[in-house]
Amino acid sequence: MAKLLSEELKYDGPRFKVFQRRYEREDGLKYIRDSVEPGNAVVILPITDKNEVIFVKQEREAIGKIALELPAGMIDADELPEQAAKRELEEEVGIKANKIEYLTEFYSSCGYTNEKLYVFLAKDFEKGKQHFDGTEEILNIIKIPIEECMKKLENNEFEHAQMQIAIYTYYYRYYNGGKNG
Amino acid sequence: MAKLLSEELKYDGPRFKVFQRRYEREDGLKYIRDSVEPGNAVVILPITDKNEVIFVKQEREAIGKIALELPAGMIDADELPEQAAKRELEEEVGIKANKIEYLTEFYSSCGYTNEKLYVFLAKDFEKGKQHFDGTEEILNIIKIPIEECMKKLENNEFEHAQMQIAIYTYYYRYYNGGKNG
Repeated sequence: MAKLLSEELKYDGPRFKVFQRRYEREDGLKYIRDSVEPGNAVVILPITDKNEVIFVKQEREAIGKIALELPAGMIDADELPEQAAKRELEEEVGIKANKIEYLTEFYSSCGYTNEKLYVFLAKDFEKGKQHFDGTEEILNIIKIPIEECMKKLENNEFEHAQMQIAIYTYYYRYYNGGKNG
Repeated sequence: MAKLLSEELKYDGPRFKVFQRRYEREDGLKYIRDSVEPGNAVVILPITDKNEVIFVKQEREAIGKIALELPAGMIDADELPEQAAKRELEEEVGIKANKIEYLTEFYSSCGYTNEKLYVFLAKDFEKGKQHFDGTEEILNIIKIPIEECMKKLENNEFEHAQMQIAIYTYYYRYYNGGKNG
């Protein structure tokens, strides 16, 4: 691994920090890398007892779209990923999950950010209380049967890393291909 | 959609820009969003005629690791995604693909970045010329049979969104579950 020579905080915003770090490689080459550091997050794949996936629609200003996504959110400083998953599901969708199962985790784009996302399957719901963090707002809650989700994946209708990974991981594990395939 | 009120460039770095934008929602609420804008990228899933996937190892300073990943890179201003995929595969692995097929695309983390990645399957190789962009460096090239990749996915040994998405999409389309399942 290259040696870290120095570190500078370049931007300290409400959503993430940007650091610029200077490194020296073993062959003596010096170079810089910029890194976005937003903290880590959870993604929840809620499956109803009718095998429907629960999605949320929200405005995503960064891409200029109303996006269909799985419920997701930041892990608070004092939280375990599983606790964050339960909390975010209740906040965004208004349901509490009695069953939470870890599915996978991933770095979203390690060329320039250290963000990692933990993905949980949620099942067996009871009514909870929907409420939003700050200026976040869920516009709609939408249920799609799992088999229809697989068709949408094939047709490239699911645009976000979080939903592609969560649904494929779940489907592979519990349907075709995996242990139960 | 909320109305854009103003935009400010907060950071202009070698790898990405950061913009802060101010919006007004239909109910009158004003708020800001920060956005990282690194441009778009390609991911290549190279499959040999023995059904092995070709990976690269490189140092990823943002996460402090030597990472095993699929070949990937930025799309240049004058390039189509498919051209970028061919170029990056040759630069990073030193092979030219005679067959390139679009698999899927995804936003990596639309809560704070507009980055989109296009994923291509590459097959039928001939020798090309490996060379690296600037300070990027490929440390190793590693081949793993597709069935072993599926086991590694199940065991959460593949840490990056790009490889989870590319391999599941390919496997679902060409093996179990998909049209040929």
